[in-house]
Amino acid sequence: MNNEILIFGSLAFDSVQTPFGKRKNILGGSATHAAISASYFTTPIIVSAVGEDFLDEHMQLLKKNKINIKNLERKKGKTFAWEARYGNNPNEREVLATYENVLKDYSPSLLPEHKKTKYVFLANNSPASQIMLLDQLESAEFVIWDTMTFWIDKYTDQILKILPRVDIALFNDFEAMHFSKETNLIKAGKKILSKGVKKGVVIKKGEHGSFLFTHSFTLHLPAYPLEEVKDPTGAGDSFAGGLIGFLAKTGKVDDNSLKKAMAYGTIMASLTVEEFGADRFKKLKKKDIYKRLRELKKLIKF
Amino acid sequence: MNNEILIFGSLAFDSVQTPFGKRKNILGGSATHAAISASYFTTPIIVSAVGEDFLDEHMQLLKKNKINIKNLERKKGKTFAWEARYGNNPNEREVLATYENVLKDYSPSLLPEHKKTKYVFLANNSPASQIMLLDQLESAEFVIWDTMTFWIDKYTDQILKILPRVDIALFNDFEAMHFSKETNLIKAGKKILSKGVKKGVVIKKGEHGSFLFTHSFTLHLPAYPLEEVKDPTGAGDSFAGGLIGFLAKTGKVDDNSLKKAMAYGTIMASLTVEEFGADRFKKLKKKDIYKRLRELKKLIKF
Repeated sequence: MNNEILIFGSLAFDSVQTPFGKRKNILGGSATHAAISASYFTTPIIVSAVGEDFLDEHMQLLKKNKINIKNLERKKGKTFAWEARYGNNPNEREVLATYENVLKDYSPSLLPEHKKTKYVFLANNSPASQIMLLDQLESAEFVIWDTMTFWIDKYTDQILKILPRVDIALFNDFEAMHFSKETNLIKAGKKILSKGVKKGVVIKKGEHGSFLFTHSFTLHLPAYPLEEVKDPTGAGDSFAGGLIGFLAKTGKVDDNSLKKAMAYGTIMASLTVEEFGADRFKKLKKKDIYKRLRELKKLIKF
Repeated sequence: MNNEILIFGSLAFDSVQTPFGKRKNILGGSATHAAISASYFTTPIIVSAVGEDFLDEHMQLLKKNKINIKNLERKKGKTFAWEARYGNNPNEREVLATYENVLKDYSPSLLPEHKKTKYVFLANNSPASQIMLLDQLESAEFVIWDTMTFWIDKYTDQILKILPRVDIALFNDFEAMHFSKETNLIKAGKKILSKGVKKGVVIKKGEHGSFLFTHSFTLHLPAYPLEEVKDPTGAGDSFAGGLIGFLAKTGKVDDNSLKKAMAYGTIMASLTVEEFGADRFKKLKKKDIYKRLRELKKLIKF
């Protein structure tokens, strides 16, 4: 297949507390959320590693979603784990603990058959490992990239080397301001774009929606309005999965498809946060996605 | 004229500090901002009082904008004055001082010729005085209403009596959460609507745009993107002025015109904050408004 998506990120056991409840050791991680989201559009290939505690039931869940796990290594030790707490404002979270475990010294190594994948999502990871993955790609046509504050602070130089190699750079509002040293998001987005990003910079604002700044236009989409955000974890990765999933499926990346891809990202993120972990996708039908997309269109029409 | 707008609010001398500078005793106040904004659509009539320090040059500025000031009383004492400071986040402000002065015991009294005005904006004022004004209206067709946290805390009962008498209730995000006791804005908007507001509840989110919740639809518009917000003062009142101004001009209030009115409100607010006080309007042409409206439409199109 020509429209598969390579997703380099984490598979994790997440423990989260939100005003709607608690969950311990549920399947999470950037690659999980992105891949499940992307699986509604095309076939995701996960590049990552898990530990001995990653059970068959977890593998089955991935397979059930038609996620390619041939490039997923099982290593000695424990799977990456993460604990966080959210308050009433879903845009603010407190990370309580991060256990890198098997991902600590993980170097991604692509199977020969995956090196020619055209669509690639570099989810949050160390810039060094992201560069390692970029170097193995032989015919990538569209790369989207994510990071977090921790890497921005520590490895600015490496990030500046990555930016001109990616088509879309993803930031949340806080990260964008932090990286650009601007307090205004419009300025922040344009400044990051000027660092050489090929097509565009996305700034995700959680419940306030998202921006896409490109060299020729700016798009602003609101979030799909939800009365309850049960668990914000994975929203950004689902967003990325929907965005690149739609583009890979349509097989072209022009202005119009990029704008639509942003809308699909918005919808996939809104679905994720409605339940804990990836629970919302257990019974999700494609028509639910299209319905929500039509509602989003109506929501902003004047 | 049948499409005049009655605006009951304050004329004030504002002293503001923002990251872009300081101004002392510049002409401000809710009625001033709303009326100047509305004047681009139809004729505003200001109902308010000023003191002896309100100079001819201030009156001239209002007249120059074709604002009807027959119902503006000049009283003994000083004009309402207000001091505030804004940080880097334009959505957060610190009020340093409020001097009620001539507005302290002001009871609005409509001239006979103004009692039949169809379009009315009750800007931020004590609920008691707003009820006093509502009681003098003889053929109001469309009333929009604003308040602030201070009144919400002190006079909840009176506000609950006002809501079923107005077509649109305006809140900012903080006020809406505070009044509804909800932390989710969608829930907050719908809960306030259920208190009997005739047509809709608007929740203004500053740089994050605004919501309109009606009994039949929800609209969400982003803010017009600005790289510099020089002085956020008056944004909400300009928004209201643009909203009711457009409706009064078109002379009908259906779903479509309400949605367009929200967009005009958005644009007028974005213009206000680009300069201190009402400076931006000194050279503003109508075509600048239409241009920005087209840009807003493009900004959200996918």
